[in-house]
Amino acid sequence: MPWQAYSGKKLLTVIGRKVIGIGRNYIEHAKELNNPIPKIPVVFLKPTSSVITKGSIEIPEGCEVHHEVELGVVIGQEGRNIPRSKAMDFITGYVCCLDMTARDLQGQAKEKGLPWTVAKGFDTFCPVSTFLPKAAIGDPHNLDLWCKIDGEIKQEGNTRDMIFDIPDLISYLSGIMTLEPGDLICTGTPEGVGPLFPGQTIEAGIKGHVSMSFPAVARQG
Amino acid sequence: MPWQAYSGKKLLTVIGRKVIGIGRNYIEHAKELNNPIPKIPVVFLKPTSSVITKGSIEIPEGCEVHHEVELGVVIGQEGRNIPRSKAMDFITGYVCCLDMTARDLQGQAKEKGLPWTVAKGFDTFCPVSTFLPKAAIGDPHNLDLWCKIDGEIKQEGNTRDMIFDIPDLISYLSGIMTLEPGDLICTGTPEGVGPLFPGQTIEAGIKGHVSMSFPAVARQG
Ligand SMILES: [Mg+2]
Ligand SMILES: [Mg+2]
Ligand SMILES: [Mg+2]
Repeated sequence: MPWQAYSGKKLLTVIGRKVIGIGRNYIEHAKELNNPIPKIPVVFLKPTSSVITKGSIEIPEGCEVHHEVELGVVIGQEGRNIPRSKAMDFITGYVCCLDMTARDLQGQAKEKGLPWTVAKGFDTFCPVSTFLPKAAIGDPHNLDLWCKIDGEIKQEGNTRDMIFDIPDLISYLSGIMTLEPGDLICTGTPEGVGPLFPGQTIEAGIKGHVSMSFPAVARQG
Repeated sequence: MPWQAYSGKKLLTVIGRKVIGIGRNYIEHAKELNNPIPKIPVVFLKPTSSVITKGSIEIPEGCEVHHEVELGVVIGQEGRNIPRSKAMDFITGYVCCLDMTARDLQGQAKEKGLPWTVAKGFDTFCPVSTFLPKAAIGDPHNLDLWCKIDGEIKQEGNTRDMIFDIPDLISYLSGIMTLEPGDLICTGTPEGVGPLFPGQTIEAGIKGHVSMSFPAVARQG
């Protein structure tokens, strides 16, 4: 063990060791941001410290923060170099998640060839719903995702429109980094992304399965 | 708890929830890759699954993988919006680390404005030394870092040449993402980076404190 074991109260809430994001995984969303359609998955990481299950979404001062509603895939067992044909066996369940993104900072990073980490990584930038065991979901490639701000619908899409489906993603990712129990894969967002401002309330969900609601506030400090 | 608690044997080796990398934090290294000198820290994440303390460094087929020897700062207590003046209190110790980087994939990502995650995130891409308690290190801004391949010196630098020093980094990062016990910050590499090939052995260390040695092998699968 290279340094002290992670210990204390946080053990009870450890939610996996990584949150993997997939960019541009729906054609209409890639188009709305004038991005090319990817030939291989666009992969980034969000820090696990960005995950919340309650409380408020914090908007850093001066940032334009966009909502991206996504299907989250939760890994149930460790795997590496997982073939497509076995990929679904490594899933333990699903969540609805919001891949909150400081679009202005992401734009600057893209322009300068810099990492996306800050744009994707502020505290509270990964709200997630309650956990849905795999057995509760029939076909994860036929789920209706939705997102509303102050009651107005902003995003609607179906997971059948992913460019890289879930077995594609698990197979590709596990050829790079070992997937571990509790890891979360945010599988990309359909079109309709836009800003969320302090004082607004965002709701998102998977139709017929789960919904969640978070107020937005200005980040302090 | 949004999904099942992280459990089982891996608990014994959990080494924190994130590995934060800092790019271009030494002027001579920024210059050798023809990068501008940053005005704010360049931040990326490596997955915790890339950390190794023993075994081999795996070189993915067809990738040009570079060594970057760095001082790793290990966080000892949770903090957010940490002022520079208090930053050192949040450190529990140090490691020597190698921020292994698929330079070809990083170059493509930079050109396309894509995240650096894959280039930085393969399994075994973050070898770390044994842990050095804070008390064992006098001034962390006066440490000699070194790296050899097959006995030949490749990198030599001193942590006094960091562009953003450790309090700068802790203060900046904690204004974005909460730092948590066990988190590792790889503080950037001095000049002299270059490729590591299967069959070679890499050694790296902090002069007078710690050294480590890893063979490089071709990644299977
Ligand atoms: Mg997204
Ligand atoms: Mg990144
Ligand atoms: Mg580095």
